[in-house]
Amino acid sequence: MPVPLVCHSEVDVLIIGAGPAGLMCANALANARVNVRIVDQRAFKITTGYGDGFTPRTVEVFQSYGLAERLLRESCQIHLAAFYNPSSTGGIELTNRISNITATSARYPFEAALHQGAIQDIFIDSMAPLGVEVDRSTVPISIELSKDESELTDPTSYPVRVTLQKLNKSEDEPREEIIHAKFVVGGDGAHSWTRKQFDITMDGEQSDSTWGVVDLTADTDFPDIRNKTYVHSNHGSVICLPREQDRIRIYVQLEVNDVIDPVTGRVDKEKISPEQILKTAQKSLEPYKVIQKSEFLWWTIYSVGQRVASRFSIKNRVFIAGDACHTHSPKAGQGMNASINDSHNLAWKISLVVRGWADMSLLSTYESERRKFALDLIAFDKMWAALVCGKPLTVPSSNGISPEHFLKTYQTDFTSGIGIHYQPSVAVNDRNQELAVGLVLGKRVPPHKLMRAADACPFELQDLLPSDVLFKLLVFTGDFSDPLQQARVESMVTDMQKPESFLNRYSTPENSRFDIITISKGQKYTFDFLRLPTLLRSHWSKVFIDDTDATGSFGGGGYSYYGVGSEGALVAVRPDGYVGAIAPLDRVEDLDAYFASFMKIAA
Amino acid sequence: MPVPLVCHSEVDVLIIGAGPAGLMCANALANARVNVRIVDQRAFKITTGYGDGFTPRTVEVFQSYGLAERLLRESCQIHLAAFYNPSSTGGIELTNRISNITATSARYPFEAALHQGAIQDIFIDSMAPLGVEVDRSTVPISIELSKDESELTDPTSYPVRVTLQKLNKSEDEPREEIIHAKFVVGGDGAHSWTRKQFDITMDGEQSDSTWGVVDLTADTDFPDIRNKTYVHSNHGSVICLPREQDRIRIYVQLEVNDVIDPVTGRVDKEKISPEQILKTAQKSLEPYKVIQKSEFLWWTIYSVGQRVASRFSIKNRVFIAGDACHTHSPKAGQGMNASINDSHNLAWKISLVVRGWADMSLLSTYESERRKFALDLIAFDKMWAALVCGKPLTVPSSNGISPEHFLKTYQTDFTSGIGIHYQPSVAVNDRNQELAVGLVLGKRVPPHKLMRAADACPFELQDLLPSDVLFKLLVFTGDFSDPLQQARVESMVTDMQKPESFLNRYSTPENSRFDIITISKGQKYTFDFLRLPTLLRSHWSKVFIDDTDATGSFGGGGYSYYGVGSEGALVAVRPDGYVGAIAPLDRVEDLDAYFASFMKIAA
Repeated sequence: MPVPLVCHSEVDVLIIGAGPAGLMCANALANARVNVRIVDQRAFKITTGYGDGFTPRTVEVFQSYGLAERLLRESCQIHLAAFYNPSSTGGIELTNRISNITATSARYPFEAALHQGAIQDIFIDSMAPLGVEVDRSTVPISIELSKDESELTDPTSYPVRVTLQKLNKSEDEPREEIIHAKFVVGGDGAHSWTRKQFDITMDGEQSDSTWGVVDLTADTDFPDIRNKTYVHSNHGSVICLPREQDRIRIYVQLEVNDVIDPVTGRVDKEKISPEQILKTAQKSLEPYKVIQKSEFLWWTIYSVGQRVASRFSIKNRVFIAGDACHTHSPKAGQGMNASINDSHNLAWKISLVVRGWADMSLLSTYESERRKFALDLIAFDKMWAALVCGKPLTVPSSNGISPEHFLKTYQTDFTSGIGIHYQPSVAVNDRNQELAVGLVLGKRVPPHKLMRAADACPFELQDLLPSDVLFKLLVFTGDFSDPLQQARVESMVTDMQKPESFLNRYSTPENSRFDIITISKGQKYTFDFLRLPTLLRSHWSKVFIDDTDATGSFGGGGYSYYGVGSEGALVAVRPDGYVGAIAPLDRVEDLDAYFASFMKIAA
Repeated sequence: MPVPLVCHSEVDVLIIGAGPAGLMCANALANARVNVRIVDQRAFKITTGYGDGFTPRTVEVFQSYGLAERLLRESCQIHLAAFYNPSSTGGIELTNRISNITATSARYPFEAALHQGAIQDIFIDSMAPLGVEVDRSTVPISIELSKDESELTDPTSYPVRVTLQKLNKSEDEPREEIIHAKFVVGGDGAHSWTRKQFDITMDGEQSDSTWGVVDLTADTDFPDIRNKTYVHSNHGSVICLPREQDRIRIYVQLEVNDVIDPVTGRVDKEKISPEQILKTAQKSLEPYKVIQKSEFLWWTIYSVGQRVASRFSIKNRVFIAGDACHTHSPKAGQGMNASINDSHNLAWKISLVVRGWADMSLLSTYESERRKFALDLIAFDKMWAALVCGKPLTVPSSNGISPEHFLKTYQTDFTSGIGIHYQPSVAVNDRNQELAVGLVLGKRVPPHKLMRAADACPFELQDLLPSDVLFKLLVFTGDFSDPLQQARVESMVTDMQKPESFLNRYSTPENSRFDIITISKGQKYTFDFLRLPTLLRSHWSKVFIDDTDATGSFGGGGYSYYGVGSEGALVAVRPDGYVGAIAPLDRVEDLDAYFASFMKIAA
């Protein structure tokens, strides 16, 4: 039989590009049991170099997918940041050494560094048992989106048509494959093919700052070689970062004339060698010695563009994520984090729509939430890059950067990723914040330790909120042994069991979309969880008390930490761990209204 | 070619029996790269039932082999113990609920429960990549120990000859295998074949207490079903334990006449069914209901013997470990722990002798250390079993057990395994305790958090003491920025670098038997570890400071916790994590003397 020239297939979601954004998205969708394909033009996985730093928030996100354990085992942790400036005797000296992470609610109060190849392997290995692999050496050559409005608004239709070509295909493979997809995600990098097909512009500008990067191992007497180090020397700026094993990474500010091709205006890797980059760094790091001990493990040069895509989606059917949406300097260590969190934000929304749980309108919040974040990121990056590249404040150049100003800019919540705050939308309600002031609507649930009522086993609340596409309903009952409060809780349960309650409208008993987690006031030596209404304890493992652990060394104070009073509260947490809505116990209808704004009635 | 009737082979260590003691020993020796074989008469692995509880100390030991992560993932944690007694209205009521573990220095302050099959799999999976597998369906039929003294005292000889027979052997296998071993370990259980071959007696007695055990899942309104529960009812005693998943285990005191065969005097499993055992428990647990929800996953009956072997070794060539050495009631949850810790104590000693690092005399400390522990265990078990089996203190029976007395007996360090204290011997020095009163000679190093100097990454000191057959030398330098203390440290380094120092006598630079871990006083924002002498920082990861982590939430106070003064101290920790010797910085010769008592001069 002759091999057909073209074959056709259908898929819920096609992902173009297997970098951090694409792989994160593919893994999240695969875990949600969404039918997903991911293609990449590269023939092989990358094994070294590229993106490196993980913010505390990204580690939390990994943990919610069960991936943090491996990340933490393989990565190097950066706990301190050191700042060096010109010394009066020539060379540089330590000005200040501080905590690298200052966000007080960070569960993982450090930056984790690991090369991009190892990170991508974590996703690849996680998806493999679910049957999802990257189709390599595969490029899209055309993409068409249906113009039929009824097709576009029907979540069960396949309105995107992508033609794929296999590079180096064998003779018994078809020349082309046409994929009919419900959704397409372009995670295809700064030069995104997907973005260009839809003429999405990148708004912003190219900066005139140019940097070289080298990965190596070194013999050195530089005391902060295992910390994150910002060096302002009279010869230029250098950033040193520790890496897994004994490796280090050095970013070096370069003279534009040395590396930019005057004709194209682009950086030209032919114009410089890693040896030259290291030599420039060595000069700036004097009097300390950094002697190369290994081959260069990876190196590159780049000039910084600071741009954000004008749109992140076409008709909520084609999305772009990661570097395809935003480019900026790597100096605040945000690149890969932004990419991973784009996909974390998008994947559950697509999953809910594909499952028929949520309305298509939910998908609009991807652009509204993530584009605003990208704009904030570029604003921060501009300010930060200017400081990093600026001249130090020394006597001959008194308009330079003072160490104090530098430190103050550095120590914000932004760099940790903890500060991300999504604004009110269908997915983020803006009512009743006063009932739980520590659970900020639109922000991630901060970590706190609770004790499981049945066995006093300590749990991190964040670990009760896995990224499993279920909404988590935190029921703060208050003190159930108080008869007044008991009556309030029982009345709330009655309300929630009514046919018109969100629990019954948007969920069926066989196929729940909600996970009810009960958090009571109580004391482990006396609390009897079996007294709670059965709705609040579907299993003995679902009830928690706000008490210390059996040794009294941690836990307790959770009501106060989350700002919940003795009257209790209902808190709906989105599948991505962000607070969606809050209601008092006697107004279950506030949650009904929240879910009604984007959920579909369960069949 | 005809199959030979008999084949011969040589092995450093042959282990008989693949229960917890045997597997623990095999895994430890395999990790130490000792040539080891392990045989078991069973054709298949066990998959359920048997031993269950892990004390906090045993979890620490697992961690030292890199096995705690999996144990903690698979096991169920028991944080609370509850005590029930007869209620005045009939049935039982909660008298007290307390912490299950009261040892304040426990790193894992709970009991971990997991069925023996899963535990054995942890060892089996750990050894597999090292090429060690259990030879199943294999029984020893004879064992002979050479009587030649020169052979017995030569650590390189193979003086033990064991004949093995393969059950269900195929036709192309030899009928018998004769193994020539340097050492043999009998981990072959309470009816140990090894023990009997050498006529080692078991000293002690059989108690008249008889118990039944059932594993199941249940529907219940018993509030403490996920805690460890001791029930004294007017119908007898019951102990309930939670297990992995939703399983529970119930121990039930039985009437002797119901289960003992009057002719043999032994328990007869034919005389009772698991249904009857559960029914007895149900009566004692009234008014609470425990309704069977699953098949019985495992069950047995037993009568308690409390005995210790008169010897644990023959000529330091044949050893017995685990139930082969000691039998007692399971009610304090010690059985498997004692077995595992026997092997933990023995394995490093055998490893050091096989490697030619230590003298044969070191092996004598196995019996002296572990037999004393076994005797203490039996003494505790007698007292405890009497309380558990006793009648409750009620009005009609006023000579019963009071809840207060019961609680007081329960709350000791013994049950946690933390209290194990080996007495002075060649392996435990008795000098200079005052220099580090928190590091008790003969006890395990208690856990504490330190910060790595180069990167302020927090580490648990116990994790710096893996069971890797190296002695760890903790160098408490004091404050190196104090010139007087700096001089002291530098002089100590000079002493340690002399040819006659233990470091050079018992170790070669290429093949060190010591791992030097430096613990300095200092502050993470200012400390420069590169100022320390190079002997104290063989790698940047080897220097720690006694300071809080970068967020200030834990760590610090280590000198005070370990009772080390500003003058510092040298502490030698044995490969099993127990403190072996302590010396002041200016008396390195105290360590020379300690190691001279059992180490061999390095070639």
